[in-house]
Amino acid sequence: MNKIEHIGIAVKNLDISNELFAALLGAPHYKIEEVASEGVKTSFFKSGPNKIELLEATNPESPIAKFIDKKGEGIHHIAFAVDNIEHEITRLKNEGFTVLNEVPKKGADNKLVAFLHPKTTNGVLIELCQDIPKDNK
Amino acid sequence: MNKIEHIGIAVKNLDISNELFAALLGAPHYKIEEVASEGVKTSFFKSGPNKIELLEATNPESPIAKFIDKKGEGIHHIAFAVDNIEHEITRLKNEGFTVLNEVPKKGADNKLVAFLHPKTTNGVLIELCQDIPKDNK
Repeated sequence: MNKIEHIGIAVKNLDISNELFAALLGAPHYKIEEVASEGVKTSFFKSGPNKIELLEATNPESPIAKFIDKKGEGIHHIAFAVDNIEHEITRLKNEGFTVLNEVPKKGADNKLVAFLHPKTTNGVLIELCQDIPKDNK
Repeated sequence: MNKIEHIGIAVKNLDISNELFAALLGAPHYKIEEVASEGVKTSFFKSGPNKIELLEATNPESPIAKFIDKKGEGIHHIAFAVDNIEHEITRLKNEGFTVLNEVPKKGADNKLVAFLHPKTTNGVLIELCQDIPKDNK
């Protein structure tokens, strides 16, 4: 767990929220990326060594659509940067955490990602993310 | 907005959650601090350039007690480090954000803090925090 890589925030309308977060952070988003497998369109902002990721659902079955239906817009997850995601998954399973996907999957921003179930982490959805090595692209 | 200074997480029992987050982050909390004016006891963990702050209510009127009653344990706020909190408050008011306390107040960890109302920030409670200069201690 090297640092907070990003905070993911569920939003209803990416265009409106991109303007809002540009005003908040003092600089516009630097990229938009769709992750079709997760049913989300994302935008990324820099905040020093960290990022803010806004997430808009692209279909009603998207986890983000379900989250907003249940809780409204707001913070969806915290992502921590790790060097070796498989090592961290094993370590965290041994510590008693529930890993939602034990095989890392491809997320936004050229990352391998895995999630921990919030019921084992004080209600916080935790994402682990590791940069995908260049020779695996 | 220099970086994510910390993420604040509301917990029911600080002792239990300190163990949980030590297991998650791979290192124990490095301090405990009570902020009587806010009705909270806090613990801090390092995550590279960032911190995780756990917050336990010390009385039923604490904002953390009310948060947990309404939403359960989970992420309570994101705090961004700023160099000049008064300048940022003015800038953000001019951008249309609602600042909950226009006069910065003393928070945990030797900071001056101010909060933005979540209704103007996509449901996210945002804290601004600035280190208190040594000659003001």
